[in-house]
Amino acid sequence: MTEIRTAIPEDIDKYLDSLVRTGPFASKAELVRAALVAFASTAGPMASDFDRENIMAPDGRIYQLEYAREGTMRGGPGVGVAYEGGVVLMSVSPSYPLVRRVEKIGRVGNRVAMLSSGIVSDAHMLRRRLLESSPRTTDELIDLLVGFYWEHSVDRTKRPLCAALLIASALGDDAKLLEFDPSGAWLEADASAIGIQAKSRKELLEERYREGSAEEAEELAFEALGRPTAYEVVHVSS
Amino acid sequence: MTEIRTAIPEDIDKYLDSLVRTGPFASKAELVRAALVAFASTAGPMASDFDRENIMAPDGRIYQLEYAREGTMRGGPGVGVAYEGGVVLMSVSPSYPLVRRVEKIGRVGNRVAMLSSGIVSDAHMLRRRLLESSPRTTDELIDLLVGFYWEHSVDRTKRPLCAALLIASALGDDAKLLEFDPSGAWLEADASAIGIQAKSRKELLEERYREGSAEEAEELAFEALGRPTAYEVVHVSS
Amino acid sequence: MTEIRTAIPEDIDKYLDSLVRTGPFASKAELVRAALVAFASTAGPMASDFDRENIMAPDGRIYQLEYAREGTMRGGPGVGVAYEGGVVLMSVSPSYPLVRRVEKIGRVGNRVAMLSSGIVSDAHMLRRRLLESSPRTTDELIDLLVGFYWEHSVDRTKRPLCAALLIASALGDDAKLLEFDPSGAWLEADASAIGIQAKSRKELLEERYREGSAEEAEELAFEALGRPTAYEVVHVSS
Amino acid sequence: MTEIRTAIPEDIDKYLDSLVRTGPFASKAELVRAALVAFASTAGPMASDFDRENIMAPDGRIYQLEYAREGTMRGGPGVGVAYEGGVVLMSVSPSYPLVRRVEKIGRVGNRVAMLSSGIVSDAHMLRRRLLESSPRTTDELIDLLVGFYWEHSVDRTKRPLCAALLIASALGDDAKLLEFDPSGAWLEADASAIGIQAKSRKELLEERYREGSAEEAEELAFEALGRPTAYEVVHVSS
Amino acid sequence: MTEIRTAIPEDIDKYLDSLVRTGPFASKAELVRAALVAFASTAGPMASDFDRENIMAPDGRIYQLEYAREGTMRGGPGVGVAYEGGVVLMSVSPSYPLVRRVEKIGRVGNRVAMLSSGIVSDAHMLRRRLLESSPRTTDELIDLLVGFYWEHSVDRTKRPLCAALLIASALGDDAKLLEFDPSGAWLEADASAIGIQAKSRKELLEERYREGSAEEAEELAFEALGRPTAYEVVHVSS
Amino acid sequence: MTEIRTAIPEDIDKYLDSLVRTGPFASKAELVRAALVAFASTAGPMASDFDRENIMAPDGRIYQLEYAREGTMRGGPGVGVAYEGGVVLMSVSPSYPLVRRVEKIGRVGNRVAMLSSGIVSDAHMLRRRLLESSPRTTDELIDLLVGFYWEHSVDRTKRPLCAALLIASALGDDAKLLEFDPSGAWLEADASAIGIQAKSRKELLEERYREGSAEEAEELAFEALGRPTAYEVVHVSS
Amino acid sequence: MTEIRTAIPEDIDKYLDSLVRTGPFASKAELVRAALVAFASTAGPMASDFDRENIMAPDGRIYQLEYAREGTMRGGPGVGVAYEGGVVLMSVSPSYPLVRRVEKIGRVGNRVAMLSSGIVSDAHMLRRRLLESSPRTTDELIDLLVGFYWEHSVDRTKRPLCAALLIASALGDDAKLLEFDPSGAWLEADASAIGIQAKSRKELLEERYREGSAEEAEELAFEALGRPTAYEVVHVSS
Repeated sequence: MTEIRTAIPEDIDKYLDSLVRTGPFASKAELVRAALVAFASTAGPMASDFDRENIMAPDGRIYQLEYAREGTMRGGPGVGVAYEGGVVLMSVSPSYPLVRRVEKIGRVGNRVAMLSSGIVSDAHMLRRRLLESSPRTTDELIDLLVGFYWEHSVDRTKRPLCAALLIASALGDDAKLLEFDPSGAWLEADASAIGIQAKSRKELLEERYREGSAEEAEELAFEALGRPTAYEVVHVSS
Repeated sequence: MTEIRTAIPEDIDKYLDSLVRTGPFASKAELVRAALVAFASTAGPMASDFDRENIMAPDGRIYQLEYAREGTMRGGPGVGVAYEGGVVLMSVSPSYPLVRRVEKIGRVGNRVAMLSSGIVSDAHMLRRRLLESSPRTTDELIDLLVGFYWEHSVDRTKRPLCAALLIASALGDDAKLLEFDPSGAWLEADASAIGIQAKSRKELLEERYREGSAEEAEELAFEALGRPTAYEVVHVSS
Repeated sequence: MTEIRTAIPEDIDKYLDSLVRTGPFASKAELVRAALVAFASTAGPMASDFDRENIMAPDGRIYQLEYAREGTMRGGPGVGVAYEGGVVLMSVSPSYPLVRRVEKIGRVGNRVAMLSSGIVSDAHMLRRRLLESSPRTTDELIDLLVGFYWEHSVDRTKRPLCAALLIASALGDDAKLLEFDPSGAWLEADASAIGIQAKSRKELLEERYREGSAEEAEELAFEALGRPTAYEVVHVSS
Repeated sequence: MTEIRTAIPEDIDKYLDSLVRTGPFASKAELVRAALVAFASTAGPMASDFDRENIMAPDGRIYQLEYAREGTMRGGPGVGVAYEGGVVLMSVSPSYPLVRRVEKIGRVGNRVAMLSSGIVSDAHMLRRRLLESSPRTTDELIDLLVGFYWEHSVDRTKRPLCAALLIASALGDDAKLLEFDPSGAWLEADASAIGIQAKSRKELLEERYREGSAEEAEELAFEALGRPTAYEVVHVSS
Repeated sequence: MTEIRTAIPEDIDKYLDSLVRTGPFASKAELVRAALVAFASTAGPMASDFDRENIMAPDGRIYQLEYAREGTMRGGPGVGVAYEGGVVLMSVSPSYPLVRRVEKIGRVGNRVAMLSSGIVSDAHMLRRRLLESSPRTTDELIDLLVGFYWEHSVDRTKRPLCAALLIASALGDDAKLLEFDPSGAWLEADASAIGIQAKSRKELLEERYREGSAEEAEELAFEALGRPTAYEVVHVSS
Repeated sequence: MTEIRTAIPEDIDKYLDSLVRTGPFASKAELVRAALVAFASTAGPMASDFDRENIMAPDGRIYQLEYAREGTMRGGPGVGVAYEGGVVLMSVSPSYPLVRRVEKIGRVGNRVAMLSSGIVSDAHMLRRRLLESSPRTTDELIDLLVGFYWEHSVDRTKRPLCAALLIASALGDDAKLLEFDPSGAWLEADASAIGIQAKSRKELLEERYREGSAEEAEELAFEALGRPTAYEVVHVSS
Repeated sequence: MTEIRTAIPEDIDKYLDSLVRTGPFASKAELVRAALVAFASTAGPMASDFDRENIMAPDGRIYQLEYAREGTMRGGPGVGVAYEGGVVLMSVSPSYPLVRRVEKIGRVGNRVAMLSSGIVSDAHMLRRRLLESSPRTTDELIDLLVGFYWEHSVDRTKRPLCAALLIASALGDDAKLLEFDPSGAWLEADASAIGIQAKSRKELLEERYREGSAEEAEELAFEALGRPTAYEVVHVSS
């Protein structure tokens, strides 16, 4: 635990001592801890409904965006790995017996692919925006996606988009792997993961990644997904 | 029951012991269970009104969409089964004596049919959107429906569409069976069911489905619906 | 009463016993019943304000639509009966001494008539939409009415239309009797009733209806309305 | 009083007996009455804020419209009486010493007159809508007024119009007397009254009305208004 | 005080007696009065937030309009007096030492003047509407002002205009004195007053007004304002 | 303190006596004062959330505008002084070591200058409105600024502009000094002050102001600002 | 601590004495302090939800803007330093192993660079506004950014932009260093810092800054950022 030290007047201290003697708490430290927990649960940003809308909380965060991120962690897992001359995206296929196709990895022309996690229709609309606007460079693609995410994070009459994306883009340039989160924040990476257990998959990728061939990249993605029996895979080359 | 283990300080533990000795709870486990239930009912997403609007709950879900799904489970049942060269949709006819026609299965041109469950006018408007836009491929049809669902899931001034759909589409391609839920999520399936008792009907379909002739598919659908005395049936062929 | 059985741990059971011994309840069953009623009145959809807007309640219903339906049951009664080659609509005339005319049955051209119950101006606007758009078929008429109802059921800034309709339509086809409710749900029927005591009138219609002549249909409608001293009647023929 | 009978379990009954013995209530009937009143005031539509907006209450009413009707009952009184070949509208003139003119009866061309009660500007805007649209028939006039009332009864971002109207219209036809209330409901009458004490004035009109000459109609209106010292009167003839 | 009589059951009466004997109230009348006050303050329209928006209260009033009227009573005083062939408007000049000019009486062309009280910018916008639309008759002027007031009284997303006006208008006709309040209600008067202590000034005007010359009218206005040391005066002649 | 006298019934008086005897209050006056404070803090306009939006409070005030005025008092101080043939505006320069320029006094062409206090961007937008519309007279300038302030005081979906302005305008006329507050109220003055400690600075100006030369005006402004070490100064001449 | 002195009546004082004697507080000062804390936490602007929207708090502040400022302090740090003929911007590069690129410093043409801290998509949209509008002078650039910030601070249906900016602009003039905060307030500076620990970095800059060469400026920025192992740096020259 983090230690917090605070000075209190002697008289308050005596009062706390009396509370310890007469109450359920075994020590003063215990009592203070309980007081802080009680305070946080009645006065914290969540208790004050700062997490209900696209507004700023006192600690400078926008809780709706954090909840949307939480939503993307519930979706099926996906991994992207960049390699010399291309990027591979791979997702685990659903195991429902009668399902023939779901929308997990989608193509946008033949130089962009998109793997998503979260609310299916949110991801679908992000992809449609790309299809309708036909960006010519990766920077234009970023502009389109950030703008769409942003509209849904700044307006109190909307909710945030609940979709994490891995994009493989070779628009007018070398193939790049991009990751987007519901706030519209993005980064370019060597390798990354979204969806359920993304954190541990990223740790595995950080440990084992080294730039190599398409085959090595696909093998690493396969490994990071836990060597699933059924999977979907797409390569985008420069 | 799932077992949850947690470590607590000795002094808190003593206090719990005293509560067990003096209170209505027969054991500490019992007391902890009651505390969790009380906590969930006052602090859970539902207690905090996260389920009142199209917003993100702390657990990353959008409760209005789940309630809309619940609404689709109240509607009359319907089943779809794909076969070699076509898809069959079948629904149980209502048993009100003087009713001549209700809107359960509708045609969209001669290559698409749509079976719905939930709020009748929501399904009607989904079908109208198809009629007005005349999609030429199944992917265009998907775009139109997802877009319409999505508009009603992302805007806090609207409610979600409360309609589950089974679509048989042979637009520009082989006949396919699609299923949509109120979040706009969709999938392509060999066979599926919507409406009341959809879950048990799906289990029956999973057990008995195998690709075959139109007659076999119709027989399976009839079986899954519990061999009703009056029913409506539509075939869409490639 | 419906019997609900549930298993509870022994220690909880003992605690309930003690409550029965010391409290106002004569038996454990009584106590549980009271607990359920108390829970429903503080935690049910109505207590949680799910019935205040066009939103989904946890049980998958839209309560505003149900309240609008309730509103249509407060209006003056009306009955429609289909017969060979036509449909008759009949309503009871108001009994206020100085009233010359109210808007109960209205014409839309000479092939459609509309009997309404509920908020007068809501029905008036539904009729105006038909007058302004001049549908050429009964299906177009249905589209117009469903669309108008739907707009008022899906938008949180509006209230639902509080109007039930019986429509006699012979647009481009045989005369049909249609019934609409505030959710925009519709059906085609041999005979039906709206307004006050609609349920018992429908039971009478179900019992006595058989397809026959215009005179027999009118007599049945007259019967279902309780043989009123003053009434309004309109026939639409194919 | 209306008698309500309900069966209760014996044990509950005993508990009620004990409450009567120990509490302030003299009898079980008294206790039940108090319980019902308490329930209604905490759980009724008004307690639940159903009367704050243009929404449906659980009993199928729209309370804002009823409150607007209440508002029209606070305005100065007015009476309309139809006669052979015309309609007379009459209102009591205000008795403030320095007032020269208020807007109580207004002309809309020379074939329509309008007497209003309620919020002055609401009535003014209803009249302006007529002036701007120049209806050619009484049915067009009705359409315009109902539409304007309706817009303000169906939209949650507005309040209802608080104006009752008596209209004398001879547009393209015989002179008619129409009455409108804030919900947009209208009727055609032989004679009617709006504003303060409208109910008792209507009773007087029902008792004494018979179709006659313009002079007899004016005399009846004068009577119904309590033979005021100052009044305004307008005739519209066919 | 107004006497209210009500019959209560004997047993309730006894209970009240016991409350008087044991509680702080000296008599039953006192107790009932206290109960009514307590009820009104917890259950009245103001307690129920009916006064927060442009909505109808259960007593048929729109409280926001009444509060806006209250706001106009806080502004500096002004008086208008009609005379043979003209109208005079007079206001007290502010007594701040360094102030050269405030907006109290404004001109709208050379045939209209406007004296206002309340929120300065609200009055300013009312005047601008006149300047921009250039009404040609006093009736057109009334239409413009009523319409502007009304827009702000009927829309829940706005607040009412907090401005009372005295208008001297000689547009296309004899000079008239008009008074407007925040609800858009207007009247034509011989003489009137707005702003602080308007009520007592109106009583003085009612007592002393008689139609006369411009000088007599100005003298009466001066009197009604308490013979201020600094004042502003404008005449509008027919 | 202001003395308030009120008559109360004898029995209530006795009860108050008993409260004084048994409670913490030393006298009846003390008790009444405490009661009033308690009442005001639970029932006053602020307690009732009338100060949360652009709405009318029961006392006829718009609290949001008063809070915006409070916000303008937090900004750095500024002073304006009119003289024969011109106006001088002067503000204290900020004392942050590395700051080169802030937006305190801005030019609008070469005949208008504007000194502001409050939210920087609100003042910036007011100035932009002038720059974009290029008013030709001081009255047009007033119209533009009042209109912009007003839009933000009348709409419940906005907040008021939090900016006080001193304007020196020589548009088409002699140079004038104008002051605006967040309600859009304005006045023309010989000299005035805005920002922190505006009240005491205004008192100093009232005491010492006399019309004189540009140098004397600048010296007075310098004095009123407390002879700051760093300041900004702008002259506008007729 | 700040000392507050207040006079209280003797009787209240006695009552406080009794509270000290019988309660947990060791002195009257202690008791008063506790009372003030309790009052502030139940009655302060934050307790009253003034910090939930773009509205004015009673103390004249807009809390949402302050929370947005807090949000910018959570972002990675950045520093800007002006020198003879140019400006340098420098930020610490993120230390995630697989990240290739994030959006921390962006170019807008070759005469403007922008370093941001806070919500990535907010900063992205501010930069896009510049890219789309191509300002020709630094003043036009300021207008564009202030306008965009302002729109999000004045509208209750939006949230403020959570982005602090350091801009190096050489548009049509000498290179300048500008700083913007979420309220749209801006200033021109010799050197400044944003993001985490901005305050202590600014103190270091104030201490060590002197105008010098590009190299000296870069060295100072490097120092202020704590000599990071990986950093991004951009120069803009006049």
